[in-house]
Amino acid sequence: MKKITLMTPIGVRDYDPNDMKLRNLMLSKIHNIFELYNGSQIDTSIFEYSNLLQFKYGEDEKLIFNMKDDKLSLRYDLTVPLVRYLIMNKIEKGKFYRIGKVYRCDTPVLNKARLREFYQCDFDIIGSYDLMFTDAECISIINEILTQLEIENFIIRINNRKIIDSIFKLCNVPKKLFNTITSSVDKLDKHDWTYIKTEMLQKGLEEKIIDELENYFNKDINLDELDSLLRSNKGNIVGVEELRKLIEYLNIYEITSFRFDISLVRGLDYYTGTIYEVVIPETDIGSIAAGGRYDKLINSYNNTMNIPCVGMSIGFERIFLLCKLKQNNKCKAYIVTCGNINIKYKIDLIKKLRNNNIGCDMSYKKKAKVLDQFQYAEDNNIKYCIILGEDEINKKVYKIRDTKTRAEEEIPFDKIVNFMIEN
Amino acid sequence: MKKITLMTPIGVRDYDPNDMKLRNLMLSKIHNIFELYNGSQIDTSIFEYSNLLQFKYGEDEKLIFNMKDDKLSLRYDLTVPLVRYLIMNKIEKGKFYRIGKVYRCDTPVLNKARLREFYQCDFDIIGSYDLMFTDAECISIINEILTQLEIENFIIRINNRKIIDSIFKLCNVPKKLFNTITSSVDKLDKHDWTYIKTEMLQKGLEEKIIDELENYFNKDINLDELDSLLRSNKGNIVGVEELRKLIEYLNIYEITSFRFDISLVRGLDYYTGTIYEVVIPETDIGSIAAGGRYDKLINSYNNTMNIPCVGMSIGFERIFLLCKLKQNNKCKAYIVTCGNINIKYKIDLIKKLRNNNIGCDMSYKKKAKVLDQFQYAEDNNIKYCIILGEDEINKKVYKIRDTKTRAEEEIPFDKIVNFMIEN
Repeated sequence: MKKITLMTPIGVRDYDPNDMKLRNLMLSKIHNIFELYNGSQIDTSIFEYSNLLQFKYGEDEKLIFNMKDDKLSLRYDLTVPLVRYLIMNKIEKGKFYRIGKVYRCDTPVLNKARLREFYQCDFDIIGSYDLMFTDAECISIINEILTQLEIENFIIRINNRKIIDSIFKLCNVPKKLFNTITSSVDKLDKHDWTYIKTEMLQKGLEEKIIDELENYFNKDINLDELDSLLRSNKGNIVGVEELRKLIEYLNIYEITSFRFDISLVRGLDYYTGTIYEVVIPETDIGSIAAGGRYDKLINSYNNTMNIPCVGMSIGFERIFLLCKLKQNNKCKAYIVTCGNINIKYKIDLIKKLRNNNIGCDMSYKKKAKVLDQFQYAEDNNIKYCIILGEDEINKKVYKIRDTKTRAEEEIPFDKIVNFMIEN
Repeated sequence: MKKITLMTPIGVRDYDPNDMKLRNLMLSKIHNIFELYNGSQIDTSIFEYSNLLQFKYGEDEKLIFNMKDDKLSLRYDLTVPLVRYLIMNKIEKGKFYRIGKVYRCDTPVLNKARLREFYQCDFDIIGSYDLMFTDAECISIINEILTQLEIENFIIRINNRKIIDSIFKLCNVPKKLFNTITSSVDKLDKHDWTYIKTEMLQKGLEEKIIDELENYFNKDINLDELDSLLRSNKGNIVGVEELRKLIEYLNIYEITSFRFDISLVRGLDYYTGTIYEVVIPETDIGSIAAGGRYDKLINSYNNTMNIPCVGMSIGFERIFLLCKLKQNNKCKAYIVTCGNINIKYKIDLIKKLRNNNIGCDMSYKKKAKVLDQFQYAEDNNIKYCIILGEDEINKKVYKIRDTKTRAEEEIPFDKIVNFMIEN
């Protein structure tokens, strides 16, 4: 007999019933909020043709999971499959959400926090609308989800890619270094300027340019200061104006948890305007939600379509680690039989309860010990035991026992459904 | 620029918003029924180590989807991952359900009805209990799900593997031909005995044995006839007795849609007792749910564990094609603005409605044409338009327009939430 690997594959997890209770509760809240915002759900398979996923993820392209069949890969995110769906169906506007698993061929030994399979929950608004209105709507969805999941102390960092581009242009950062220098700027969240400067020098950027960049990428710079700095150097201020408009909307939405952060750049190649990312300061859990505007992504696949998009994605697995919500047990009653009663009484009762959407359970042994049955109800956190023996059948009552307090009372046969609904 | 394949990969589907509404409604009903029966949900990743999946699926093993990394395959069903989970966690009893996607590397050109990615919904009862009680529970779950999904005219075919084994032994079918001859018997559902006989002859079974088999595998044989036939030949009647007990329970559960069918054998290697399969006669849609008892499967992976199991699986994609349930639109109101009103009124209203769990939508253009806004509500099947212009703001009322009847009425600002909840 060949040796069989009885293990959970590396980099993925099994979820036990307690995990699943919480995950379902979280997913149903997210789903409900997406519907409240009138999103339309779509689903695609986990497979995509490999060449669809090329040149979209920058340095992380190496993390794409490939099938044995060369042409197929597992989806890396839910954005590229959406774009494929929109182009194939010639859709030019709408609000689309997806809740599904995505795959990254990360090396789990080096970085245990990163799973190879994880849920993402994405909402995207497709089409041309008034400037920044839909960007604000996406941030409002993030804010609503995190609030309803009772995630505390989160900060929504916001910025605009056009600002980064404008600064880089003013400071004469060579085009070919744009991507690698943005990735250095991205590290300002965790390192000081001296560290960043060393890295930029190593990447071949002139010291003069780095010193100019320092004027802008000062963590404490506010939007007014940035605005006048750009204006005085005759820089492009479109990004700043977009950000002002966005903030005006966020204020009307009464969202208070955001802050402008010049060092936010986001790694993906396809962002073109607003970008945002949610963090919980003083934790090392990384970003728990993120998104932004990607007005050119559809065009990069189909140059006859020029459709602006903005979207957001919830990092479900990270929030799952933080979320403390409690889900009630759907199973409310355990039917305890004593003595040699006809099994028909037991099955009839369980049928009646289930038909009235009351979760319940019973022993599958006809002559189970009464104490074992009580113990099962206690171990499984089932609120009531419904005791059924010859006495009860003769009197046409059920004896109800509160599993926690052990208090008992009698309920007539025909009142049991009401009792369970009301209690 | 390389050519990019803007297509849905072969053998899988995209699901549009209407599909997803129905699929979500179906999944939530199935989920609810699993909970009513006090199942505990678990989830595993789509990956399993390849050698875990070997020697379990008979001839269909060739359909397993392999990753580029030789050691990994995609799960073929939800049963083997459950068994791995039970062994790893040393679980010897409980009721576990899983709802998730499984993968088969089928050739979609040859057989368009079979998808390469599809949902299964499984419920399994693990542990030793009174004979046939849990088998009846599983069939009751199938019956409940199909009834709640309003699937009509389904028949639950039931049989017992021990009966097949007993007949084969009595008729002296050689052990090495057991599997291939059961697969011939399986075709009795669609072919007559002459066809089956020819096939069995080709497979090398003696004519004398085939003619003996014919006495048993008569589509119209009932359980009493089979019982006396087996007894008169001194055959093993344990399977018949189990089936009688099962039928006794099904009658108490008041399930009427089952029938004993001697020609039901089920293809998988691991069944050991009760087997069942749901079909809709006079359609060619195949089985829409199935399951059975597999008392030796855990043991086949770990010979120190000897744990009986019985389970069921819903063929979600086939039921999805049959199901006609209608899901209501969660979005109930569309906010229509006219004139140059302050956007704060619009956002405040939409916030208030969403905070009260009332789905709603609005135009993201500040100066959208009123008729365009009405049209959007009509196109998207949104029940009410809430009209908001300068007049309404001055009078502190909203004008409510029924999208279908076009009837209008005025509602004071502070009564809007109640109106939407009640209507």
